[in-house]
Amino acid sequence: MTETSKPSDASPSDTRTLDALLHAGSIAVVGASSDPRKIGGRPIAYMLANGYAGRLFPINPRQTEVQGLPAHASLAAVGEPVDQIIVAVAGPQVEAVVDEAIAQRARSIVVLSSGFGEIDEAGRQTQERIAARCMEAGVTLVGPNCIGVFNARRAMFSTFMSALEHRVLPAGDVAIVTQSGAIGSYLYGLAGDRGVRFSHFIATGNEAGLDVADSIAWLAHDPDTRVIMAYIEGCSDGQRLRRALLAARNQRKPVIVLKVGASEQGARAAASHTGLLAGADAVYDAVFEQCNALRVASLEEMADAAYACSVSALPASNRVGVITPSGGVGVIVADAAAQCGLTLPALPESVQRDIKSVVPFASAANPVDTTAQTLGDRTLFNRIMRLLFTCQGMDSIVSFNANLGQSEAEFGKIKHELFALRKENPGQVVAFCSRVLPSVAEELEAHGIMVFDDPGRATRVIGAMAKLAAGYAAAVPAARHQGRQAPALPAAGPMTEYEAAEALAAYGIPFVPQAVAHTAEEAARAAEQLGYPLVMKILSPDIAHKSDVGGVQLRLADEAAVRQAWDSMMDRIPARCPGARIDGVLLSPMLQDGVEVVLGVTRDPVFGPIAMFGLGGVFVEVLKDVTFRPAPLTLDDARQMIREVRALPLLQGVRGGAAVDLEAIAQALAALSAFAVDCGDTLESVEINPFIARASGGMAVDALIARRAAGA
Amino acid sequence: MTETSKPSDASPSDTRTLDALLHAGSIAVVGASSDPRKIGGRPIAYMLANGYAGRLFPINPRQTEVQGLPAHASLAAVGEPVDQIIVAVAGPQVEAVVDEAIAQRARSIVVLSSGFGEIDEAGRQTQERIAARCMEAGVTLVGPNCIGVFNARRAMFSTFMSALEHRVLPAGDVAIVTQSGAIGSYLYGLAGDRGVRFSHFIATGNEAGLDVADSIAWLAHDPDTRVIMAYIEGCSDGQRLRRALLAARNQRKPVIVLKVGASEQGARAAASHTGLLAGADAVYDAVFEQCNALRVASLEEMADAAYACSVSALPASNRVGVITPSGGVGVIVADAAAQCGLTLPALPESVQRDIKSVVPFASAANPVDTTAQTLGDRTLFNRIMRLLFTCQGMDSIVSFNANLGQSEAEFGKIKHELFALRKENPGQVVAFCSRVLPSVAEELEAHGIMVFDDPGRATRVIGAMAKLAAGYAAAVPAARHQGRQAPALPAAGPMTEYEAAEALAAYGIPFVPQAVAHTAEEAARAAEQLGYPLVMKILSPDIAHKSDVGGVQLRLADEAAVRQAWDSMMDRIPARCPGARIDGVLLSPMLQDGVEVVLGVTRDPVFGPIAMFGLGGVFVEVLKDVTFRPAPLTLDDARQMIREVRALPLLQGVRGGAAVDLEAIAQALAALSAFAVDCGDTLESVEINPFIARASGGMAVDALIARRAAGA
Repeated sequence: MTETSKPSDASPSDTRTLDALLHAGSIAVVGASSDPRKIGGRPIAYMLANGYAGRLFPINPRQTEVQGLPAHASLAAVGEPVDQIIVAVAGPQVEAVVDEAIAQRARSIVVLSSGFGEIDEAGRQTQERIAARCMEAGVTLVGPNCIGVFNARRAMFSTFMSALEHRVLPAGDVAIVTQSGAIGSYLYGLAGDRGVRFSHFIATGNEAGLDVADSIAWLAHDPDTRVIMAYIEGCSDGQRLRRALLAARNQRKPVIVLKVGASEQGARAAASHTGLLAGADAVYDAVFEQCNALRVASLEEMADAAYACSVSALPASNRVGVITPSGGVGVIVADAAAQCGLTLPALPESVQRDIKSVVPFASAANPVDTTAQTLGDRTLFNRIMRLLFTCQGMDSIVSFNANLGQSEAEFGKIKHELFALRKENPGQVVAFCSRVLPSVAEELEAHGIMVFDDPGRATRVIGAMAKLAAGYAAAVPAARHQGRQAPALPAAGPMTEYEAAEALAAYGIPFVPQAVAHTAEEAARAAEQLGYPLVMKILSPDIAHKSDVGGVQLRLADEAAVRQAWDSMMDRIPARCPGARIDGVLLSPMLQDGVEVVLGVTRDPVFGPIAMFGLGGVFVEVLKDVTFRPAPLTLDDARQMIREVRALPLLQGVRGGAAVDLEAIAQALAALSAFAVDCGDTLESVEINPFIARASGGMAVDALIARRAAGA
Repeated sequence: MTETSKPSDASPSDTRTLDALLHAGSIAVVGASSDPRKIGGRPIAYMLANGYAGRLFPINPRQTEVQGLPAHASLAAVGEPVDQIIVAVAGPQVEAVVDEAIAQRARSIVVLSSGFGEIDEAGRQTQERIAARCMEAGVTLVGPNCIGVFNARRAMFSTFMSALEHRVLPAGDVAIVTQSGAIGSYLYGLAGDRGVRFSHFIATGNEAGLDVADSIAWLAHDPDTRVIMAYIEGCSDGQRLRRALLAARNQRKPVIVLKVGASEQGARAAASHTGLLAGADAVYDAVFEQCNALRVASLEEMADAAYACSVSALPASNRVGVITPSGGVGVIVADAAAQCGLTLPALPESVQRDIKSVVPFASAANPVDTTAQTLGDRTLFNRIMRLLFTCQGMDSIVSFNANLGQSEAEFGKIKHELFALRKENPGQVVAFCSRVLPSVAEELEAHGIMVFDDPGRATRVIGAMAKLAAGYAAAVPAARHQGRQAPALPAAGPMTEYEAAEALAAYGIPFVPQAVAHTAEEAARAAEQLGYPLVMKILSPDIAHKSDVGGVQLRLADEAAVRQAWDSMMDRIPARCPGARIDGVLLSPMLQDGVEVVLGVTRDPVFGPIAMFGLGGVFVEVLKDVTFRPAPLTLDDARQMIREVRALPLLQGVRGGAAVDLEAIAQALAALSAFAVDCGDTLESVEINPFIARASGGMAVDALIARRAAGA
């Protein structure tokens, strides 16, 4: 896919846009083919084979009939308005077809044809013209260069994806939105093999019209869709994507995202493949985290997560009960659980006693090792399952059943009891781990029980589900408020740290006491009031690297030192920095305790202002131990960011030292993010470095604000 | 499984031990059953069904015939010596059967019966008695409480594993060694589904006799086995395991290890399940790393790795060429490759030109995006495959083929050319990524081409293979030398840091210059020679925490400061530490530059001396950023350890500062590990903290040696 010039302030499409596309009551295929394997033949073949209920009009001036349907010479020849036009003609003819479709009052147009922005600049211009005309006419455009869309419930297969040739799955409740037709088509098969069933499929192609954000925003409110899979290579307007993800989040509808280009090597490969702005990958991570979208790293992981969210509700907590006839599998599950944030609390004593009354040699704590005895007598297993199902506070159950699912007869011995248990206790997430026959899997899934052949994989998927559930339970992310008054900043131009501190202090960020002095006398008086030891800094909007020119002096211990520092600065700096305005010096006390942290907001080209947190010194600069979130932050966002850095233990008290006041950091970080958002387009970046976190409270020591021309 | 009292100095069994077990020419089953689903019936049923070529003797005093074979009343009644005795009688009768088997000159005994160490102390004592008698008689014992062993090539199925009931796979070249019968049996099915075929299966049960180390050591030299899968819960003798792993490493035979209990939660679950010493999990990691065993985290990952190593040779490098009709898949592979240490070098210009001459719009750098054009014309794909196959330096190829493998007809269009290419270029690792029919997979695998439905998973597996290959190319780990002279240390009892420094300096570890002074006068003279600033420390074997009692003074800048420090120490310390011997003070210059690192060796209860490396200060103590390896280290081991810490950038030069001399650290670390090994059992731990790494060279500043009673 390639970049388009879609206006960056476009709001998410209203729902009618995709209604027109996915609820089309009549469809015409321009460039219709009698060959059911050609691009212009497949949509017709798929819809005929699967019973599309609307009217279907092949358009082909050289034929009177296509695949058994009467063909028309043109859209006009149909003689009535058609909801959706599928365009499958050669690239150069597409523009004229689109014009005719608009003239004939089509409501949506799906351009399958290629030869546009993915090829050259001329193609890009053509697709922009097409998109502009569609927008003007209020017509929904998909593509060009896309493999199309489908609505499985209506058998509306406006697509040439080849996966449908091998097998059309029954309709389900998982939607696919994809920037790559090939990957979307492959996912249909791969996740389908895994048991996933689909509601809608939207391949956005070159995104001249409809894009991934539009699609997610619509699906967020689509009653036929419970889970959204989104394959993303890049994004030109991060705010629209973020709003779409938040819409899904607010509906508690899981969005499972595969965003590629996470590594430098991958980003390079992506750059050669798509013209979209990539943005920093860490920023995508932060956006997905904030919007509670589940980011996955592989097609398989994506299929697993979609499968799980579709088969089962999310767990109420991260507490898992494990039942297995093999102690070793219990350990494997415990390891996997620890890795993904799940816990295996010990079962209540009474439950343990009950388990041992069923199988005396069972290890009953959790994992419950039912021993090989339950392999010989399957009813024992179900009796223990009942104890787990009815045990308070086990919100997920991982049950290992070895090769049981390989035999319908063996499975038959436990299934009625199991399904009855399930019905009585619909709240838990249950993973049935076994090698299974397809028929056994289907029956389990129909009862809301997930099936995995690898118990570790089952556990990791439950971990992902629990993370999603916890995200829904957290506070709703702050909206990026618009139209709030921008903070009062001095007229454009470089700002001194004193001005920066004043602006941030107005947002409630505590600063170390500071005083400006314009003479040696004033400096001495201010020093007396602030207390020693002190730091003196030259105050000049024109000098960026103050220490390099002797403009910072630390540990001034008394009045003599202060006067000497003044003299030396006033002596040397004008000579070293000829022409620099010098507004005096800034004095502040040196803090003797606390831990240095860095708080910042920078502008990402795709997502706008992004808050940043890390520990001072080598931690941010060398070890890259930083965490990001789109601004503005809720206090919860800020607290989470602080908890995410690897160096967190250094804030929690080291070698008997006191912990610092994390809440004070979180408040300052949230306030800084609000400041940045209020500044709007005039802000390039703001950084507080260091902020000294102390046992109680904390103080910003230095701040830097960089501005940019508004609207740049 | 439960712990046994196997002598910890046992050497790996010689090969005859397992020859007797796995090459048995005749087998008797004591407790033979006519029911082919009973424990005493299954081995007979499996061997009869699959054509075991040796003689098979059911022993059952109450029957004249078992499953069509004549039954004998006792082993003696067989009338000739039998190689292997399978024991499937009730626990209390086992001891007598073993005695009879030994009397009848059996060469191996497989005790399937349970009711021993896994139940109680009495059971543990019984299994020890049995093991002792077998050892004395030179009879190989497996179990008790095991599901048995098999040799697939000979159809010798001395096991009751139920997986064989559903399906017996053709023999292959992957062996399973497992401490859990249930997991071994499940792996047989799970990895079998994946295409893995097996040579041998050894479930060690309670390990009263044969253990995992014995089994790996034998398989390392078994010509029928190319790959070893080992499931490990714990280990009582780390050195034997390490030697077995090294034996396999020296044969370049991949050992794929699933060692459970990696997390605290998992270790807790394991502790309740097995009585084996767990040892620190990080130490297992270090051992596997050093022995080039591939540690995996799940059953599925284990199956994947075994599959890959069995189907294909290892790649000669980490360079991968990617060919795909979908740009998005190229990015997915590039991301996955980056994560597992693979690189995608750009193809040579000439090859890129050739690719574009086949498909003009192809993206030819690497990943090669052949565009959807190759989906329509499969021959184009093969022409590009040829270019990749013949391109120098691409040692692996990941080829994405969408749903091609779902159709024998479509696959038929490319396979002959593909197999011919493969034959001409047998050196590369080739992953064919597609959803495939089983018949298609089998054909590809027979030609040494791996099949994966998830291209990211294929990439990660190739990453693991490349890591194995690199490990084989690295220097062979040092043997733990025995009988080398122990270093001369002062008589037992606490050692001062001065004594420690002398002992370590004798091993070539550079120390900061030090001087001992017994009077203020001597201190002043020594200071003059060493140069200022100086550190003074009280010298006493009886004072552990010297700074707490004022026994360390830093930054002494001149003679007056030295004398004052002397006076103050001699004044206060005797009062604070009454009775402590005071041997004077230790003086050394304070180093002004460099980075503090920590070098150490500690004793692991399972694996003995383990070397440790990390950066000083918070990095080791708070952030746990440390790395381990069994001592002694080769220089290569030490270099690798240094590269493994997250804080490595701090050693490589920060903010324009110079990099430190990593080689000097590696030499000191290797020397320290040699010292520790030479000390043998008398050493508890030795630590150099800090070692100051400098731009050129480095110096130990302080060392601590803790000893233990020999043989403790």
